[in-house]
Amino acid sequence: MLRFDPGEGRIRTARSFQVWEGGGEYNVVRGLRRCFGLRTAVVTALADNAVGRLVEDLILQGGVDTSLIRWVPDDGIGRTARNGLNFVERGYGIRGALGVSDRAHTAVSQLCKGDVDWDAVFSAGVRWFHTGGIFAGLSDTTADVADEAMAAARRHGVTVSYDPNYRPSLWAGRGGADRAREVDLRLARHADVVVGALGLAGTHPGQARIGAEEVTGALAEVAVLLPEAKVLATTLRDVPSAGVNDWSSAAWSLDTGFVPGPRMTGLYVLDRIGSGDAFAAGLIHGLLAGTGLERALAYGTAHGALTMTTPGDVSMASLAEVEALITGGSAHVRR
Amino acid sequence: MLRFDPGEGRIRTARSFQVWEGGGEYNVVRGLRRCFGLRTAVVTALADNAVGRLVEDLILQGGVDTSLIRWVPDDGIGRTARNGLNFVERGYGIRGALGVSDRAHTAVSQLCKGDVDWDAVFSAGVRWFHTGGIFAGLSDTTADVADEAMAAARRHGVTVSYDPNYRPSLWAGRGGADRAREVDLRLARHADVVVGALGLAGTHPGQARIGAEEVTGALAEVAVLLPEAKVLATTLRDVPSAGVNDWSSAAWSLDTGFVPGPRMTGLYVLDRIGSGDAFAAGLIHGLLAGTGLERALAYGTAHGALTMTTPGDVSMASLAEVEALITGGSAHVRR
Amino acid sequence: MLRFDPGEGRIRTARSFQVWEGGGEYNVVRGLRRCFGLRTAVVTALADNAVGRLVEDLILQGGVDTSLIRWVPDDGIGRTARNGLNFVERGYGIRGALGVSDRAHTAVSQLCKGDVDWDAVFSAGVRWFHTGGIFAGLSDTTADVADEAMAAARRHGVTVSYDPNYRPSLWAGRGGADRAREVDLRLARHADVVVGALGLAGTHPGQARIGAEEVTGALAEVAVLLPEAKVLATTLRDVPSAGVNDWSSAAWSLDTGFVPGPRMTGLYVLDRIGSGDAFAAGLIHGLLAGTGLERALAYGTAHGALTMTTPGDVSMASLAEVEALITGGSAHVRR
Amino acid sequence: MLRFDPGEGRIRTARSFQVWEGGGEYNVVRGLRRCFGLRTAVVTALADNAVGRLVEDLILQGGVDTSLIRWVPDDGIGRTARNGLNFVERGYGIRGALGVSDRAHTAVSQLCKGDVDWDAVFSAGVRWFHTGGIFAGLSDTTADVADEAMAAARRHGVTVSYDPNYRPSLWAGRGGADRAREVDLRLARHADVVVGALGLAGTHPGQARIGAEEVTGALAEVAVLLPEAKVLATTLRDVPSAGVNDWSSAAWSLDTGFVPGPRMTGLYVLDRIGSGDAFAAGLIHGLLAGTGLERALAYGTAHGALTMTTPGDVSMASLAEVEALITGGSAHVRR
Amino acid sequence: MLRFDPGEGRIRTARSFQVWEGGGEYNVVRGLRRCFGLRTAVVTALADNAVGRLVEDLILQGGVDTSLIRWVPDDGIGRTARNGLNFVERGYGIRGALGVSDRAHTAVSQLCKGDVDWDAVFSAGVRWFHTGGIFAGLSDTTADVADEAMAAARRHGVTVSYDPNYRPSLWAGRGGADRAREVDLRLARHADVVVGALGLAGTHPGQARIGAEEVTGALAEVAVLLPEAKVLATTLRDVPSAGVNDWSSAAWSLDTGFVPGPRMTGLYVLDRIGSGDAFAAGLIHGLLAGTGLERALAYGTAHGALTMTTPGDVSMASLAEVEALITGGSAHVRR
Amino acid sequence: MLRFDPGEGRIRTARSFQVWEGGGEYNVVRGLRRCFGLRTAVVTALADNAVGRLVEDLILQGGVDTSLIRWVPDDGIGRTARNGLNFVERGYGIRGALGVSDRAHTAVSQLCKGDVDWDAVFSAGVRWFHTGGIFAGLSDTTADVADEAMAAARRHGVTVSYDPNYRPSLWAGRGGADRAREVDLRLARHADVVVGALGLAGTHPGQARIGAEEVTGALAEVAVLLPEAKVLATTLRDVPSAGVNDWSSAAWSLDTGFVPGPRMTGLYVLDRIGSGDAFAAGLIHGLLAGTGLERALAYGTAHGALTMTTPGDVSMASLAEVEALITGGSAHVRR
Repeated sequence: MLRFDPGEGRIRTARSFQVWEGGGEYNVVRGLRRCFGLRTAVVTALADNAVGRLVEDLILQGGVDTSLIRWVPDDGIGRTARNGLNFVERGYGIRGALGVSDRAHTAVSQLCKGDVDWDAVFSAGVRWFHTGGIFAGLSDTTADVADEAMAAARRHGVTVSYDPNYRPSLWAGRGGADRAREVDLRLARHADVVVGALGLAGTHPGQARIGAEEVTGALAEVAVLLPEAKVLATTLRDVPSAGVNDWSSAAWSLDTGFVPGPRMTGLYVLDRIGSGDAFAAGLIHGLLAGTGLERALAYGTAHGALTMTTPGDVSMASLAEVEALITGGSAHVRR
Repeated sequence: MLRFDPGEGRIRTARSFQVWEGGGEYNVVRGLRRCFGLRTAVVTALADNAVGRLVEDLILQGGVDTSLIRWVPDDGIGRTARNGLNFVERGYGIRGALGVSDRAHTAVSQLCKGDVDWDAVFSAGVRWFHTGGIFAGLSDTTADVADEAMAAARRHGVTVSYDPNYRPSLWAGRGGADRAREVDLRLARHADVVVGALGLAGTHPGQARIGAEEVTGALAEVAVLLPEAKVLATTLRDVPSAGVNDWSSAAWSLDTGFVPGPRMTGLYVLDRIGSGDAFAAGLIHGLLAGTGLERALAYGTAHGALTMTTPGDVSMASLAEVEALITGGSAHVRR
Repeated sequence: MLRFDPGEGRIRTARSFQVWEGGGEYNVVRGLRRCFGLRTAVVTALADNAVGRLVEDLILQGGVDTSLIRWVPDDGIGRTARNGLNFVERGYGIRGALGVSDRAHTAVSQLCKGDVDWDAVFSAGVRWFHTGGIFAGLSDTTADVADEAMAAARRHGVTVSYDPNYRPSLWAGRGGADRAREVDLRLARHADVVVGALGLAGTHPGQARIGAEEVTGALAEVAVLLPEAKVLATTLRDVPSAGVNDWSSAAWSLDTGFVPGPRMTGLYVLDRIGSGDAFAAGLIHGLLAGTGLERALAYGTAHGALTMTTPGDVSMASLAEVEALITGGSAHVRR
Repeated sequence: MLRFDPGEGRIRTARSFQVWEGGGEYNVVRGLRRCFGLRTAVVTALADNAVGRLVEDLILQGGVDTSLIRWVPDDGIGRTARNGLNFVERGYGIRGALGVSDRAHTAVSQLCKGDVDWDAVFSAGVRWFHTGGIFAGLSDTTADVADEAMAAARRHGVTVSYDPNYRPSLWAGRGGADRAREVDLRLARHADVVVGALGLAGTHPGQARIGAEEVTGALAEVAVLLPEAKVLATTLRDVPSAGVNDWSSAAWSLDTGFVPGPRMTGLYVLDRIGSGDAFAAGLIHGLLAGTGLERALAYGTAHGALTMTTPGDVSMASLAEVEALITGGSAHVRR
Repeated sequence: MLRFDPGEGRIRTARSFQVWEGGGEYNVVRGLRRCFGLRTAVVTALADNAVGRLVEDLILQGGVDTSLIRWVPDDGIGRTARNGLNFVERGYGIRGALGVSDRAHTAVSQLCKGDVDWDAVFSAGVRWFHTGGIFAGLSDTTADVADEAMAAARRHGVTVSYDPNYRPSLWAGRGGADRAREVDLRLARHADVVVGALGLAGTHPGQARIGAEEVTGALAEVAVLLPEAKVLATTLRDVPSAGVNDWSSAAWSLDTGFVPGPRMTGLYVLDRIGSGDAFAAGLIHGLLAGTGLERALAYGTAHGALTMTTPGDVSMASLAEVEALITGGSAHVRR
Repeated sequence: MLRFDPGEGRIRTARSFQVWEGGGEYNVVRGLRRCFGLRTAVVTALADNAVGRLVEDLILQGGVDTSLIRWVPDDGIGRTARNGLNFVERGYGIRGALGVSDRAHTAVSQLCKGDVDWDAVFSAGVRWFHTGGIFAGLSDTTADVADEAMAAARRHGVTVSYDPNYRPSLWAGRGGADRAREVDLRLARHADVVVGALGLAGTHPGQARIGAEEVTGALAEVAVLLPEAKVLATTLRDVPSAGVNDWSSAAWSLDTGFVPGPRMTGLYVLDRIGSGDAFAAGLIHGLLAGTGLERALAYGTAHGALTMTTPGDVSMASLAEVEALITGGSAHVRR
């Protein structure tokens, strides 16, 4: 999606917007590419007009391979296929971040089973496939595409991760939280790694957060629901102010049981959008690199924390910075 | 619509956009209000989210009464009702202006007969009603709404104007230029004044322009098609470069027959979008003020010319400036 | 006034300014219109030049009716009548906000008794009239205009509110704080509601603030001075840093006696200018809506708090946001 | 003065302004310092607030000595002494540049005879003193100050130049063009060099320009009026469009008689404000350097032309660029 | 290089710069990738610091493969290896574009024979290799690297193109134009295609341009000097103003002899930097696609012309736009 | 140096930069001039191109005398002499400030003994000379120039101050911290006042900071090393977050022994670069004005604190603001 950012002002009175690219699943592969140095690609569809080409321009800047993007002909008005837009203001103090998602009728929401030759995609030495509940929630057909892709990935021995990332707006009028949870559970059962696993605990919690003390039990509960999952992970956040958050994480794996992530309290937050996705990227990097779950959690937590210090959805951090933060770097000047 | 303007750059590589409001019929009432000092209102529908509120903020700035806007509930994703967006870069020299219109599935395109109480609208001393082929072309229902509104206006003795303003993208997949012309002719027959009348001559000419010498004949041809029309008017433009245009106009009325407008050659153009609508505003001002058709053409032509000297769709000119230009004002400093 | 805002920099080294509109009494009606949805108008005078028209453009954007503005002819240099300008930098940490008010010789300061037909203004179903010590302090004649307007309002059964809003610069060389207090007391005696009532306690306190514990007594003291006042209200603020304030309010009414407002500590402040006016708007909304004084204080306090999270003098908050904050909304993302 | 520049937009709808410094006489010394490398100072008065300090910051950037500026105490509101402001939009094509001068009641307009110790100013090796009709027209006292300063300069053997630079707004209500001409003639009689000399020909021509063919006669006529003047010079401009001007100059001296300046037709103009002052700077440089009048005219004309290619009132050209233009430099890339 | 662009202002008084990437040879591969859709890579070296990473970010945005970039360790001060910077202002009217190239001591200038495994580079199905006199002129070692690369390319059957692109600053103190020509001739002899071939005619012409009528002879002369060259091409430009250029091209090949390119007179130019490189990209596209030399010239000329309508060094045009311009597209709005 | 500031973003993904001037020793004289009102000059060398002239433009804005700058001819590429550039992003929360210094091969680094006529410089009533370890560390010759200058200053009875200001990058490959300390000690022995004196305690501490409790001992240790120093001073900083610092200072003098500076905890920091230099400026002002060491420390600490509330390297504070902060001013609005 194209992110429209009014800076320190508000959408409703803006006279200019800065633009960034973003989108839950995309943010993960962007972070893996630019911060962690892995080669990644995005599978999506865009309407072929100047706005779609702007999204391509931003994805190229993100270093992500664009060759798997399906370009859908533009009808000149967006009736048959649009590009997703996302207006988000970042909030300040007691004023929370606020988003207007304008992404119905997009080219990607019309992706259907069979549109992508997943065997071709996964036969080229791919090691990891990540998808989640935002893509799966775009339409009834995208849930099927996610299913098809995850099955193909597993056929090719590709590790699969899934992030439910529940967005109420996607499910309004289509069965709501219950239907979302049903789809998420159906898909997460094919995943080796589930990020945002707390989203599947008990009744679908949506935006309500679980206290840190209850996390162990909640992850255990999810582990029962997803018997094939090898790693369950989640971020933990308290929001006393839009600009100052407490930030942590936790995970569970078959091998290690429950593992708490590093706690970062009183984090100054410039723009929190995308921090959960940055967490996923760090975690996946750790798991791919075989660092052990505790270190992987540290990568995810630190990467997510740094993402909150810059505008836009995506990380501008380097691997060296993530590692310095993990080992307790200060905020002194480097020069 | 919300107009996204990348300034001197291009949409496809922009990192920021200035925003303006715009829309064919709206631009006319905006110009009548801010340049010509008339009280005007817009009848439309917007999705009630921060983007819709930004459009409201811009319309308020335009001085146009917003109390007739229908606010459609936001579904959080734009599935049922969106707000129209319009990305336009202004062009430079040999590079023409380029627009990406993202206005399908908008709240206004779903307006239906019966949604607006036109009798209430027109019973409050309204003198003029303007609509056109962009609104009528948004959907099958909006053509009916235009019909209903024009009929109500005439019932209340309100003068009606119509501007075909053919946009191929609106009609693609819905019958194309032929169907557009059919709808335009059906509606224009109810109009007292038709702006952009050349759009109804012969086969629907779309973007192709008629040479100045053929205008007399073409207007006569349209007059036959629209026996009830009292005034037919059109702009005339040559585009040797995106930045330098030749600009003129012409009209026909029962009383006067053919009247040529002033010719302005070698006009320096900063942003031409909205100049046709500014022409309509000036013309309507003249007709409302009873200046005679020649003077009304001069108002329209001068107002359109000044609109091309500023960014955005809408005029930033004052009535005094329009009149100074008509009487041959120079471009000297005023201080 | 036109507010010039150098953003995160300082006036003294700025190379560009963002502009907003502002002015104590105007900010109140702007907030009532855009946040609380009431129809409001401003009675003022502007010099008729491009700067005055820019102020009009901003007031229109604010949704405030401009038809009562008196346009004074421009003399080309500002000798007889200018438009008020207000340069304000917002401060940061230990560096407080700093303003340069350039508003002598303005058109509005020359408004005289008899210039406005207040009976016409108030005969059209007006429910509330707000003015204050900034307008009254502009010149000797504006104090008389305020007096005349308040008397007319009361004649028409319109509720009257007054905010002393003492600005030392307005009174320098004209009798100072003593004279200001004399004028404020004379005018406040005609008001049903006095906002900023602490400004009238004891000797004129100017910028010095009264501790929260002394507020009860101070309001009681003011109540004695203003026997006809039905509601006295005040904001309470501590400023440990330009960017972090403690913010609360209090009120007194005949019916309820002393009522403390909600306490908001550690508020992150982007730009505090206009928060007192936003408080007044929320309070007036509550009183007009008959919510009771405690709820009215909550509207005022929350609206004032949100105004401090955005740049410019005026609120960008919605009623829904104010109400969510009153009922304890968090600063989580809404999307 | 502080120049507020809305860029490619208009004052009346601006939301931000770039600021520059400017002012007829100041622009001349700024150009002499930064383009021609001479040490210059400005004698003026500013109100001592953050706006005045911003003007100082800009003058320092201009390299002009600020030690002769009188700092008048700020009264917090601008009643007794303000700083001059100048809103100017640059125009585009048929839309001319437009200025709103807000400079009444300024500190400098209150400068009186005796305020400045001109003998001290001129005793330190000063070679040239330039003033003109803008300063002299600010108030009745500044005309006297100009007179006093010119007399002192001549006492010290300092060459004196004067530029009438008639601004109708300065004289409105104070005797108009007739009184302006009277003052200009009284002062110009003390000048060795008169720039903008055509302003003194016949009845005061104000904005109306004399055709090139009549220039010889007009200068001769002025020479009769100013028997002590050694050099009379003027710019010549045609304005077919705000963005394309024809530009030339002419001069007369006792030694040489009439000398035509170089003709530059079809000049592309970004912002013409200050080009006349830049002409004066180039001319004075040439005269000071003893280049002969023809070359001095070439310096002035080329410097003025380059000033029109950049935003703001003042020149950003270098001496090398001026000389390259005189000798026929092309607009090729230098790299 | 990192291009610093002060927009409509000048370097010497700028307070902000927009940044773009650029560099003669890079611009060609950027154009081939983003406009003509070919997969391209850049072989260069960058110092590994945040500035180098910014260049990488821009190259990624350009879609150019970055995997062949050599990352040289940063010494924290730029003593051993820097990244090239290029300050360029675009000029306006009579004021030509002006550049300050700060590119000595760069990482790329220290590239030596043997640093790059050219056999590996060219063994992967590469079809074309382009280099030129800017890279070769960076240092004595880069001339050798160019020689080595061209030889390797020919060994692998890769077509080689060369653009002398003489920059006096690169050769100052190192033998000047004579030495540059010697190096250019030595390298151009290995090229199949020479762009900017006029640079090798007669004595090294540097910035001085050859009239259109002499082009035939000059190309013939160069053909004699470069017996192995199959295609010689050149742009032709007249610069009456920085903002309006006449633009054309010409070529010679063994098969066709002299071929004139399309003539585009009175082109409005926003920023001419990079247009020669854009010409090379279009020409190479045509030759690779086998369109014939006349059509290849048309691609180059049109692509170069469109590049001059946008800021920055590199093209923002699409292939469709280039082809529309070739077939005579107007500058009308597309919407 | 020219400071490139990406605002709230990061260097590595910036598309525009704001520019400021800066440089350790320069920042001190800038602060003395603009905040403390002393006449100051800078002795340095710049390459004579548009970038150097931009630095001059910024220095002029800083009010610092530019007549002692040596202008070195530009070679068009920066091989022989460049201008120093400094890219610095300001950090946010856990993300520290980050700088890329591109200042090798600068004109100033090539300054040699004998290039400056120091006797001429110091014979004109100069009262103070400040230099330090950044200038001295630029090259082997600049250490000698510092030595030469300090000796000359002492010959003329000018007070000398020195700030080691250790930058690892300057010394990498040239002997590192040991060599830096050797040079610093050699030079500091000629200084009357040493700012940043802790940099000379024990082994060269570089970026590692000494706890407040150890400061007394460390200063005493340095006093032994520098028997001729009259005042040793240092800032003290804790950096819990890039945006919130604890800030204090300490000093030692022969007369007073150890003197602790005021403690400012929880300072909100917008941009910390240059705060140490601002401290030096305040300290020197106090010492020059004879305020006693405690008050001088207060000037330095307050000035440094205010410098951290504005972007850029240099102070935007006024003397009145510094003094208000010393006497306990709040962060309330002044208007």
